[in-house]
Amino acid sequence: MAQEPHVTALAPGATIGILGTGQLGRMLALAAARLGLKVHIYGPESAAPAHQVADAFTMAAYDDAAALERFARSVDVVSYEFENVPEETAQRLAQSAQVFPPSAALRVAQDRLVEKRHLEALGIPVAPFQAIDSAADLESAIKAGLAPGILKTRRFGYDGKGQTRITSDTAPTEAFAEIGHQPAILEGFVEFDREISVIAARGQDGTFVPFDVAENVHKDGILHTSTVPAKIDPATAKKAIAMAHRLMDNLNYVGVLGLELFHCPGSGGARQDRPTLIANEFAPRVHNSGHWSMDACLTCQFEQHVRAIAGWPLGDGGRHSDVVTSALTMT
Amino acid sequence: MAQEPHVTALAPGATIGILGTGQLGRMLALAAARLGLKVHIYGPESAAPAHQVADAFTMAAYDDAAALERFARSVDVVSYEFENVPEETAQRLAQSAQVFPPSAALRVAQDRLVEKRHLEALGIPVAPFQAIDSAADLESAIKAGLAPGILKTRRFGYDGKGQTRITSDTAPTEAFAEIGHQPAILEGFVEFDREISVIAARGQDGTFVPFDVAENVHKDGILHTSTVPAKIDPATAKKAIAMAHRLMDNLNYVGVLGLELFHCPGSGGARQDRPTLIANEFAPRVHNSGHWSMDACLTCQFEQHVRAIAGWPLGDGGRHSDVVTSALTMT
Repeated sequence: MAQEPHVTALAPGATIGILGTGQLGRMLALAAARLGLKVHIYGPESAAPAHQVADAFTMAAYDDAAALERFARSVDVVSYEFENVPEETAQRLAQSAQVFPPSAALRVAQDRLVEKRHLEALGIPVAPFQAIDSAADLESAIKAGLAPGILKTRRFGYDGKGQTRITSDTAPTEAFAEIGHQPAILEGFVEFDREISVIAARGQDGTFVPFDVAENVHKDGILHTSTVPAKIDPATAKKAIAMAHRLMDNLNYVGVLGLELFHCPGSGGARQDRPTLIANEFAPRVHNSGHWSMDACLTCQFEQHVRAIAGWPLGDGGRHSDVVTSALTMT
Repeated sequence: MAQEPHVTALAPGATIGILGTGQLGRMLALAAARLGLKVHIYGPESAAPAHQVADAFTMAAYDDAAALERFARSVDVVSYEFENVPEETAQRLAQSAQVFPPSAALRVAQDRLVEKRHLEALGIPVAPFQAIDSAADLESAIKAGLAPGILKTRRFGYDGKGQTRITSDTAPTEAFAEIGHQPAILEGFVEFDREISVIAARGQDGTFVPFDVAENVHKDGILHTSTVPAKIDPATAKKAIAMAHRLMDNLNYVGVLGLELFHCPGSGGARQDRPTLIANEFAPRVHNSGHWSMDACLTCQFEQHVRAIAGWPLGDGGRHSDVVTSALTMT
């Protein structure tokens, strides 16, 4: 049976606590300010992008129990700008404050193996994968024909870090050393023609408001452009959005989430057995590939996230313009 | 001959100083932050809306010479959120920093008599008016048939304050006392069917980018709704925008300005002598009747103002949606 949604709506002037001091925290703070909410930023940095626009900040480590408790008591709800918030930190905060998105989303997103299994269990296709806990595991996987693929640490990977390419010729010991002898997964290559992402918001009352699907191009593992609309057919876009919906309902998610997917060519016809969409990973937070929503939508991802965690009605996520977001190359 | 425009473009991360701590200062600060600029707020208040989102603030009086000088030296450009910045304050600041909009705009806008004469000299129609420096002046004006009308202090009036209605029966001494024995003007009534406003930006290079004309409804002297598009014919809208353009070019204006106009019925035909548009007043700042630009335009008035004073190219002010902004009634 579905959980009865419990909504706690913040009053105007209430304070949102955000873990993390970076650009996403800054943009969340700006969105909160536009909605008449105050922002308290928490993080170990002494000077960072989010500080410049926040009403208050606490400079403390993520494992500073006393500082976390003071922080939680001084705010009306806690959220975060990055998915690697230590689970213990989230649990400590949850003793004194509501924390959104829920810790289940953190737990799943922080571990690639757990994430892949979770998505698979929800019927969301993922690339073939294998848990790798040692060089010996990697050797067996290569022998079993799982190469070529990518060896990825289960935790703390982003922007292509903690990853290495594996072929049938790879020396397992060296490759496992390269990723720091960390628990990992070996992911089989996926033949895709496009990368897309679904950014969507889910409110405390279960309302789901997706943005249009974006098409993303990465360079050197870093997001380079997002183009909306994506050049995929409407039925596929609908399917991608339905996957995000299923995932967010399953996690009883509150806030904005980004789900990255591979769009695979040649499915249908002779290759009917292959799914058109394969999930890569999801981020339980506002997402770099959703920045275009600031310029092209009635309500941007940052405002949606703040509305969701504040227990407010979600805004209209409709898009009024076609848009390309491009990473500035500073030379 | 036209002045050669001199453009000083701020680098990302530069600091904008804003005089005034209120809601417009807050929205300017948020726009500056979105553009990657820092904000330093100056004003006598200890806790106010703009403080919550600014990187720095100085709590000091507008006549504190030492504080003003420190402030001016710590920022890269100075602007303001209200038109009653004392001229001496602006002059002091201008010794150490660039100040936009220019002081000429402040000087004209701060005095209703100077303002009316200035607009008239530019061929922008205004209501019939008469300078009133005493009860005796008022008595003569009433005798000369200038009533009914509104007696308004020349300086420091806003939202209907410092005004009183004058009829042929008004006792001049009492009416002049009511507005505090201030130098004033008596403005003849204008028969209008709509109030409209033009919000426009002008860059340091002279580029002019208007927003669409808004139609405004006031309640008890306070702006109640702004609706865009205004229900006026396109030629009249064009004319209104041309008036703002003329005024801003004349003042060598930099930033956003709001020009309020009365739209008068029945001109043309038998009443060809009466102008369709009569200017009420202008504000040398972002304007309450331009808030809709935040939701309905590609670039809002706050971003345009920041772009202008930063010496950056103005954005596209195009409107993507029809819109009504309505004042919240807190009950």
